[in-house]
Amino acid sequence: MKLLFVLFSSLFLNAYFYFCLFLHHHHHHQRPPSLGWTGSAATEAEAVAAINCSGHGRAFLDGVLAGGGLPVCECNKCYYGSDCSQLLHDCPADVDSGDPMFLEAYWQQQAASSAVVISGWHRMSYSTDGKDYLSIELEKHIRILHQVVGNAVTDGKFIVFGSGSAQLINALVYALSPSNASSSPASVVASVPYYPFYKKQTNLFETRAYGWGGTTSSWANASVSSATNFIEFVTSPNNPDGLFKQPVLGSSAVIFDYAYYWPHYSPILDPADEDVMLFTNSKISGHAGSRFGWAVIKDEGVFERTANYLSLNTMGVSRDTHLRVLKLIKAMIAEKGGKGDIFEFGHRTLKARWSKLNELVSSSSRFSLQQHSARYCNYFRTIRDPSPAYAWLKCEWKEEDVCHEALRKGSIISRSGALFEADSRYTRLSLIKTQDDFDLLLKRMQPLVSHEEMASS
Amino acid sequence: MKLLFVLFSSLFLNAYFYFCLFLHHHHHHQRPPSLGWTGSAATEAEAVAAINCSGHGRAFLDGVLAGGGLPVCECNKCYYGSDCSQLLHDCPADVDSGDPMFLEAYWQQQAASSAVVISGWHRMSYSTDGKDYLSIELEKHIRILHQVVGNAVTDGKFIVFGSGSAQLINALVYALSPSNASSSPASVVASVPYYPFYKKQTNLFETRAYGWGGTTSSWANASVSSATNFIEFVTSPNNPDGLFKQPVLGSSAVIFDYAYYWPHYSPILDPADEDVMLFTNSKISGHAGSRFGWAVIKDEGVFERTANYLSLNTMGVSRDTHLRVLKLIKAMIAEKGGKGDIFEFGHRTLKARWSKLNELVSSSSRFSLQQHSARYCNYFRTIRDPSPAYAWLKCEWKEEDVCHEALRKGSIISRSGALFEADSRYTRLSLIKTQDDFDLLLKRMQPLVSHEEMASS
Repeated sequence: MKLLFVLFSSLFLNAYFYFCLFLHHHHHHQRPPSLGWTGSAATEAEAVAAINCSGHGRAFLDGVLAGGGLPVCECNKCYYGSDCSQLLHDCPADVDSGDPMFLEAYWQQQAASSAVVISGWHRMSYSTDGKDYLSIELEKHIRILHQVVGNAVTDGKFIVFGSGSAQLINALVYALSPSNASSSPASVVASVPYYPFYKKQTNLFETRAYGWGGTTSSWANASVSSATNFIEFVTSPNNPDGLFKQPVLGSSAVIFDYAYYWPHYSPILDPADEDVMLFTNSKISGHAGSRFGWAVIKDEGVFERTANYLSLNTMGVSRDTHLRVLKLIKAMIAEKGGKGDIFEFGHRTLKARWSKLNELVSSSSRFSLQQHSARYCNYFRTIRDPSPAYAWLKCEWKEEDVCHEALRKGSIISRSGALFEADSRYTRLSLIKTQDDFDLLLKRMQPLVSHEEMASS
Repeated sequence: MKLLFVLFSSLFLNAYFYFCLFLHHHHHHQRPPSLGWTGSAATEAEAVAAINCSGHGRAFLDGVLAGGGLPVCECNKCYYGSDCSQLLHDCPADVDSGDPMFLEAYWQQQAASSAVVISGWHRMSYSTDGKDYLSIELEKHIRILHQVVGNAVTDGKFIVFGSGSAQLINALVYALSPSNASSSPASVVASVPYYPFYKKQTNLFETRAYGWGGTTSSWANASVSSATNFIEFVTSPNNPDGLFKQPVLGSSAVIFDYAYYWPHYSPILDPADEDVMLFTNSKISGHAGSRFGWAVIKDEGVFERTANYLSLNTMGVSRDTHLRVLKLIKAMIAEKGGKGDIFEFGHRTLKARWSKLNELVSSSSRFSLQQHSARYCNYFRTIRDPSPAYAWLKCEWKEEDVCHEALRKGSIISRSGALFEADSRYTRLSLIKTQDDFDLLLKRMQPLVSHEEMASS
């Protein structure tokens, strides 16, 4: 009997092991049965992701190697140490750039649905499956994304991809400029306060066909010959102040930059339906490092000139990035309306930041902020609280007429209003960087708005 | 006894299953024990890689979906059908473009060492760990690659990355042009036959500081004012004819394009040590679709102007591509001198193609090819047979003075010599596309060189 018991136990164990080995593996998603050539890349990526950087940094696969062959932690500003656990004393809060790092935490939560394996032979060719170096599936999913969010009409319009909207800004300026050499050059203009990159880039790349024309207000007040060609940039919601904008010169060519017309930053009103619309993935998924943006273009001639520019500039956008952005957009679409909705995450995060900063600033007469009110949003189907990407801060004290410098004395690095051709009483604070950056901003603002500081000033 | 036998067998099986389940897994590299968030991406990539395209195509993760949710096969030219097994009748051999697809088979063999997992939160920031949007590790490995191959001296020089060498061509022209607005514009020149992209791109992007100046021969014969600023492109080995070239105008600024100065295509003589050197990963690893190239620059001022151009054009190169190219370069370095040496693979493949085409063409008086001889190569440390990227074919018959058209009638699509500003008796045949493209080229050439065809012509 004992022997029989042992035998049955053993047979049972056999069956159990057999099940584990052959059946379980075939049905369990996390352990694919025949992981072959992807195995070492997957193991390597998981090992790097598991490196502890104390929540104040992260390690990357292509980072500089520390001892032991693994990459070092790359720490958030003001944090240091091998695991980023140390906070530098007297480190200034750096809220200068529009680096969209507030979304990093989102993607760390969505690790499984956003990872992508690039095989060694992935799309080596100059050609893709679509025309003009575009991936068919990616273009399709970009149209779906606009449909799902309701922020732009893409039906019957052409789409081009750029290495960030940065590349597309000049490509569109080129495409909208007179192709006839005898025409007078187009004047590229924008309304104050405007994103400084438009001017910097146009000045560097200007040709006989176009050049920077200054601010719209300088033209509106002058007597303008009707022969002047304008290319007007309209950023809406605007960078830096988050306000909705319209063209003011009645220009024949307008580039609508909708970088911030997404539910993280703005209520979605009617879908935009303009002839030339510019978007950047940097401000949607937050992947600024991927350098991916797109333009939606109504006119076929403008589309073809833009595509020709992109072809001769870089022969299209990296196909590696095509694949990654497709995966990210698919993940964003799949999570729409659910607990993992990126727009919900983005709005919740920025709303909290805006409301904290607003509360702090309101407690003082030294500073003021732009006004935003709660508005109905077609995406959330409810009234939403404001959540702008930037605070457009004004120094109210008479003697602090260069606001950026006043903040710098208080250990806050901001972007001066002068760069936006606005009054230097204004300065821009970025609210879309890491949580550490924002927390430090609040900490550094605190003494500036407190009564003790006011008295000592 | 029987019972005991069954029991022992059963216990033995238990031990075996136990070993398989717990020990094997922990020590076998291909099956990581705790594959977590990378699991579904890895499974997905392997499923797509396993799609059967008959060796005449491949499926990609971001391809258009067929029934069943998996992407379709994307077939080589002239092949069709859901598994690319059908050959189109009367399909022309297309050897027009310099698409480096001959290396696809190499990377399919190196699947495990070349795959890379990109996490959802990989390098989202505008910044990288290096300056000017460069990855420190990637720049370091590019220098190691040049050291290992022995084709260029990078010590004491600066490196910039571009979205392919395409982007760098204009960036360098900009950087080498007079920055002083009162200077006369620089004339961008090249020697016939030259890569047509130099002219096309310069014409599109010309500014007040530079413009296309034509061929060097037109300047050498004219009386040139010493005040003329030249920017001379020197491609060596040259595209299309594979010959080593030197600058001819004594220009103050020369851009040495070393796209083909790699052991696949060329013997490696002394390492190049010029002030401005251009390289493209498209022709090294074969990843044209990744859009990655670099320039090695001696002068700090030129480097800074180039970096500024790249910053305002695209804010650097996709960080996704940084990661992938690093993995590819690491794999190439690791295999150096071994059985998986990519340069050995590349040279072997192109040597065989050149020798077959040469043999066929030599059998006829209708065509001739450029001459290459075996030369000592510092990389292989032996005399190597020629293996040029392109055949520069000449039509010898008096009546066939547009060679490209003569071939077109024989169902061969080539790139006309006229595009290189050479005699249209010449045309370029690309030898670096897929094996299918090359095989079809030979098949279509056969009747053209045969005596029957000659008589009927």
